[in-house]
Amino acid sequence: MSRTLSTTPRADGYRMPGEFEPHDETWMIWPERTDNWRLGAKPAQAEFAAVAETIAVSERTTMVASKEQWRHARDTLSPEIRVIEMSTNDSWIRDSGPTFVIDGRGGRRAVDWMFTAWGGLRGGLYFPWDQDELVARKVIDVEGVDRYRAPIVLEGGSIHVDGQGTLLTTEECLLNPNRNPDLSREDIEGFLYEYTGATTVIWLGRGVYGDETSGHVDNLASFVRPGVVALTWTEDRHDPQYEISRDARRRLETARDARGRAIEVVTIPSPGPLYLTKEEAWGIDEVEGTKPRTPGDRLAASYVNYYTGTTRIVFPLLDERTDDEAQAILQRLYPHREVVGVPAREILLGGGNIHCITQQVPAV
Amino acid sequence: MSRTLSTTPRADGYRMPGEFEPHDETWMIWPERTDNWRLGAKPAQAEFAAVAETIAVSERTTMVASKEQWRHARDTLSPEIRVIEMSTNDSWIRDSGPTFVIDGRGGRRAVDWMFTAWGGLRGGLYFPWDQDELVARKVIDVEGVDRYRAPIVLEGGSIHVDGQGTLLTTEECLLNPNRNPDLSREDIEGFLYEYTGATTVIWLGRGVYGDETSGHVDNLASFVRPGVVALTWTEDRHDPQYEISRDARRRLETARDARGRAIEVVTIPSPGPLYLTKEEAWGIDEVEGTKPRTPGDRLAASYVNYYTGTTRIVFPLLDERTDDEAQAILQRLYPHREVVGVPAREILLGGGNIHCITQQVPAV
Repeated sequence: MSRTLSTTPRADGYRMPGEFEPHDETWMIWPERTDNWRLGAKPAQAEFAAVAETIAVSERTTMVASKEQWRHARDTLSPEIRVIEMSTNDSWIRDSGPTFVIDGRGGRRAVDWMFTAWGGLRGGLYFPWDQDELVARKVIDVEGVDRYRAPIVLEGGSIHVDGQGTLLTTEECLLNPNRNPDLSREDIEGFLYEYTGATTVIWLGRGVYGDETSGHVDNLASFVRPGVVALTWTEDRHDPQYEISRDARRRLETARDARGRAIEVVTIPSPGPLYLTKEEAWGIDEVEGTKPRTPGDRLAASYVNYYTGTTRIVFPLLDERTDDEAQAILQRLYPHREVVGVPAREILLGGGNIHCITQQVPAV
Repeated sequence: MSRTLSTTPRADGYRMPGEFEPHDETWMIWPERTDNWRLGAKPAQAEFAAVAETIAVSERTTMVASKEQWRHARDTLSPEIRVIEMSTNDSWIRDSGPTFVIDGRGGRRAVDWMFTAWGGLRGGLYFPWDQDELVARKVIDVEGVDRYRAPIVLEGGSIHVDGQGTLLTTEECLLNPNRNPDLSREDIEGFLYEYTGATTVIWLGRGVYGDETSGHVDNLASFVRPGVVALTWTEDRHDPQYEISRDARRRLETARDARGRAIEVVTIPSPGPLYLTKEEAWGIDEVEGTKPRTPGDRLAASYVNYYTGTTRIVFPLLDERTDDEAQAILQRLYPHREVVGVPAREILLGGGNIHCITQQVPAV
């Protein structure tokens, strides 16, 4: 039973909880398209599988796979992981999937945002995106929850919330003319309030340098808990990321959250800089309509792109020089959760990371 | 969580319940292939939708639809019906889907039979059947139950059980060399015992005249409850069905069920005879490898091909001359259920009927 409601979550007393609140389940999508995932997507599939198995220890996990890949995904993954057939255009369920909202009295519903592949015909990463546009609705139907259809283009990775009224996003993405050119900043805040239940938006400026999503916040900064934000960081003044991270810290430190609190900012050193190698680029199909991958491209690497599971933090291993420090910082930030690193360079090559490829279903 | 078990339902104390026992859910598959369903499958889709809506009043209903048809199915069906994407070769989930078994202590598992499109390379109705072969496993994964993989070719429509140890089937189908040519009658009985928990098989002879499934029992006879069987019937001595039905009645009346009871046989007059019209045949694509449909073909019409829902009997309306009598008999047989007829000629044109296009999940 999944009705499409004409009201909004806010009007109905629903809110998007923080990712650090308990989950019932996580959804993922099996990677496949050979114009984004090198070597027939096999290396990426191995890393997605490892992420799924790591999360499955913490919570129920469902992997979506296409008609062509269902059998291979099913045979690759352990029986604990549910594998459901679904057509998609790519594997970023954080962005194409639904945002679940709860009412604190046992109710759970979901928001189905409009999806246009990170920029539509003005810079989108591939064409078409017709199957991705249906992912949220299909997930909602499987879950059997009621649906809000939000009349705004938005990807889940472009917002983070503290579950207590504060929403974090970036101007680079949400004010980008390739998303909702007819909406003003105030219009967009209005939709965010209605569909997430937030009451305060903290606007950061640009996302991680080189991030092809138009600067999704989930690669830059993350709510650890209300009042505490993790921020990707570099001390290298010559790195374009330097000024981006400093600007974000300034904005966070001068902001007040929905409950009037100051925000504590904890920085996590960026890996790298990391670049696409010639060998890696060689394994990727060139296809008309898909963003090309060129050797030497700077990769938008960040440890902040981690998944907050109910009992585990799953973070990307990206650089031997910095992985341990990132793990230590995350473990201090999440003293009651096990922090587990999973090799994630292949996921990074596709344009995102562990947070981008997961979508939690909050517990009720 | 869906493990594949190496034991058998019988060894684990599981049994296939009678269809008349309560259900939690029904599964169906949205029809689509234009070489079996005339006029782009639109008339069949309308009848499948009506069947689903009628069953949904009685129990939760899930409709499976392909990538291409998901959106259309979702928009056609009411929100009460869950629509899940799944690739199939056709729409007979009674045959391609799993058989659920229960242990009476809250346990539910499912049997995944081998499927070869009603005869494989020796008379099968289409080629390939690779997606149908995966339907049971996919349904099982969505349901999250453990799976038995039965090493025998069998379609769900070729067996009926009373849930108390008795299984009804036909020699025409289960002993057909196009199913399991290396297995004897005793071998096959052994598999039926292991995978359904039955202890007695009652063998009928041939199925309904002209039935392209090699004579599935579910078009010929059905357990109303333990000790009572409905049987399709004709009084026309010139109809080839005459001797088939009489032979079945003789076998039933001389049999003893698993508990030693005699069987009461209640006959339901067959509709028709009905034939494929020229106009109907015109709307069907001819495709190499698919059984052709020729004007004048006798249709294997039978009212016994009904679905036993938890609170409703859903039976096919096939012939104005006999529909009312069939409804009256069914209402006497099921005094505590509402008997609802749904127009089903389009389903019949595809080669089966309402029982063939449904698969129940028994309650635990």
